[in-house]
Amino acid sequence: MKTPAILGGESAFREPLHVGKPNLPEKKTLCNYLDRIFNSRWLTNNGPLVIEFREKLEEFLQVKYCIPICNGTIALELAERALCFEDEVILPSFTFVATPHSLQWQRIRPVFADVGNDDVNVDPASIKTLLSSRTKGIIGVHVYGYPCDYSKINKIASESNVKVLYDAAHAFGCEVDGIPYAQLGDASIFSFHATKFFHSFEGGAIATNDEALAEEVRLMSNFGFAGGVLDQVDYLGINGKMTEISAAMGLAMLDSVEEIREKNRQNFELYKEVFAEIEGANLIEPPSSMTKQNWQYVVARMDENRFGLSRDMTVQALRAENIFARRYFYPGCHRMHPYRELYPSASNILPNTERLSEQVISFPTGQVINEEVISRIADCLCDISDNADQIRHKVE
Amino acid sequence: MKTPAILGGESAFREPLHVGKPNLPEKKTLCNYLDRIFNSRWLTNNGPLVIEFREKLEEFLQVKYCIPICNGTIALELAERALCFEDEVILPSFTFVATPHSLQWQRIRPVFADVGNDDVNVDPASIKTLLSSRTKGIIGVHVYGYPCDYSKINKIASESNVKVLYDAAHAFGCEVDGIPYAQLGDASIFSFHATKFFHSFEGGAIATNDEALAEEVRLMSNFGFAGGVLDQVDYLGINGKMTEISAAMGLAMLDSVEEIREKNRQNFELYKEVFAEIEGANLIEPPSSMTKQNWQYVVARMDENRFGLSRDMTVQALRAENIFARRYFYPGCHRMHPYRELYPSASNILPNTERLSEQVISFPTGQVINEEVISRIADCLCDISDNADQIRHKVE
Repeated sequence: MKTPAILGGESAFREPLHVGKPNLPEKKTLCNYLDRIFNSRWLTNNGPLVIEFREKLEEFLQVKYCIPICNGTIALELAERALCFEDEVILPSFTFVATPHSLQWQRIRPVFADVGNDDVNVDPASIKTLLSSRTKGIIGVHVYGYPCDYSKINKIASESNVKVLYDAAHAFGCEVDGIPYAQLGDASIFSFHATKFFHSFEGGAIATNDEALAEEVRLMSNFGFAGGVLDQVDYLGINGKMTEISAAMGLAMLDSVEEIREKNRQNFELYKEVFAEIEGANLIEPPSSMTKQNWQYVVARMDENRFGLSRDMTVQALRAENIFARRYFYPGCHRMHPYRELYPSASNILPNTERLSEQVISFPTGQVINEEVISRIADCLCDISDNADQIRHKVE
Repeated sequence: MKTPAILGGESAFREPLHVGKPNLPEKKTLCNYLDRIFNSRWLTNNGPLVIEFREKLEEFLQVKYCIPICNGTIALELAERALCFEDEVILPSFTFVATPHSLQWQRIRPVFADVGNDDVNVDPASIKTLLSSRTKGIIGVHVYGYPCDYSKINKIASESNVKVLYDAAHAFGCEVDGIPYAQLGDASIFSFHATKFFHSFEGGAIATNDEALAEEVRLMSNFGFAGGVLDQVDYLGINGKMTEISAAMGLAMLDSVEEIREKNRQNFELYKEVFAEIEGANLIEPPSSMTKQNWQYVVARMDENRFGLSRDMTVQALRAENIFARRYFYPGCHRMHPYRELYPSASNILPNTERLSEQVISFPTGQVINEEVISRIADCLCDISDNADQIRHKVE
């Protein structure tokens, strides 16, 4: 037991401990790919490494078509456009801001649904109440990689005659009820951002079993140039191309992906053990329907009454220890610009989102985290909880 | 003198010769940066190499603010949004399709102006005729790096109370009348695509002397997260971030940029000598106002009557020689989807664009091209011209 740093004690960590410190592959593997790039002088524009990456992704994600894209946000934009989303699209507010921004950027109106009570994922009943003749699409998000209620969401979409896009940015390599996520909707997007368990520096992908949609997305990601015909533009498109060096990183990471997944699982189990001892810090666990997990998010839902401090004060106290735990997601997209101005009364219909976003804390995991680090984080949390009154007094 | 390959002779080149084969830096320089990336585990999100790249770009481009972006098209989108472009924006049709697509993607209507007579750049008089109360911006493009008439365009914009964005995708390192291009308008974008004389695998940048605009673009390129404050979104934004590995390539290329520029200049001079001997193949040369050039485009304007063959047949005959010369730009954006459907009669007001796009051929230059290659290309052109009647007869 030590005095919390926020009360004048020494910080638990000398260096800042960040959520999302990247995992890395063998440097040698990456350098071998770099040699191939230099030898071929093929640096982008659907080069051989992107093609190899695409094929390996299709195999890994168990989906017919997977198009690598420069990042997950551009993947969202392209998928939305290809799915003919316009006017209004329903999605949860409890998501990374890229989800609504990718719509709003294209002047499509995001309509925010609430999460379920005691759930991190969107409530299908909330989606239903927001349907209107203006609804032209639904985006389900698999928050923390945990599956949203795809069967109910798909049913609502089908009854409303709109398409479903799943934002699986958190969910690389996950399965629910034995189904790989890439097969759940009309299309899914994945993120390979550096902070994700699996990455390609920056990157993303659009996955679908629909051949026509895949071809459209492929052309749209390269300015709409028609396949095989130089100078012929048949689609409105932008530049969503992945570079060869990003594909190289993705390929190198694929070699390490099961090793990192196992590391994350071990870290998760360790966190689970220590959190069980801390009153008011409730680890959010994968639902039993998940048949494959990536364990990349370690998120606790804080119960202020039992822990003794609000989530925000807890985060502040952790920061003094050099533990940069994150409020992920906070404050809910409906409270961010431009949505807070566009929908000033959205809070009224998003009570579960508001509560959840006031309670979550995300903790570091991945290659750089081990038993000793987790145990020290747990000690800090205990010390903070034990000194809650003093901390509250000091911070308020 | 040999029989042209299209008439059954042997191809002049065994391997395809492409326009835009990438230039490369020293591999060792790039690998040193890669070591730094692995040591820091900082892969994206405004990391140290992006910051270093930004600073060096500001110095090189002689502009106060330069924000590296994942590619030139996303740079266009971000700059357009930050400059409050909406409704209608006037731009030349004779440009890469990314220019209008970046507008149309955001549901801003591109309005196409004509190039000048015997010019590759937009005619300010044409811009004037297209102005209306719906005009909310003007985009000038420096085609092949040659300057568009910035002083007249700026004057028109100022009189109409709209902002000017310059698409300087072709024009890295150029100056006109002693002024670096990055200083010409309210903002400029550059492209660092692999096929450009200077590149970062994929990449681009937004350059401006306007501090507020620069800050806005910087935030918008990272989802609108406010500087310094975690979780606070103050702008509509997307993911336009450049990765550390792209910045590493850019930094490594900066070390070689003057060497490559000189190589391009030598190639240009060689092309100039040989084209002088070929009737009907008129090299498009930089105007005397240019005080700095990058010589990255070698474009000839073909005179069918004097050369003996149409541009398209010439390109076809060159392809048989394994010379993949390009119709750049063809056919003019107004003839591409969705603009050809949106503006079916645009051709009527774009006579110069129509003529120009039927005449241009772009030839390969850069590190991989040398005197021997250029001289062989020239021989092919002579042989093709000498056998024009036979080729026309065969192709028609």
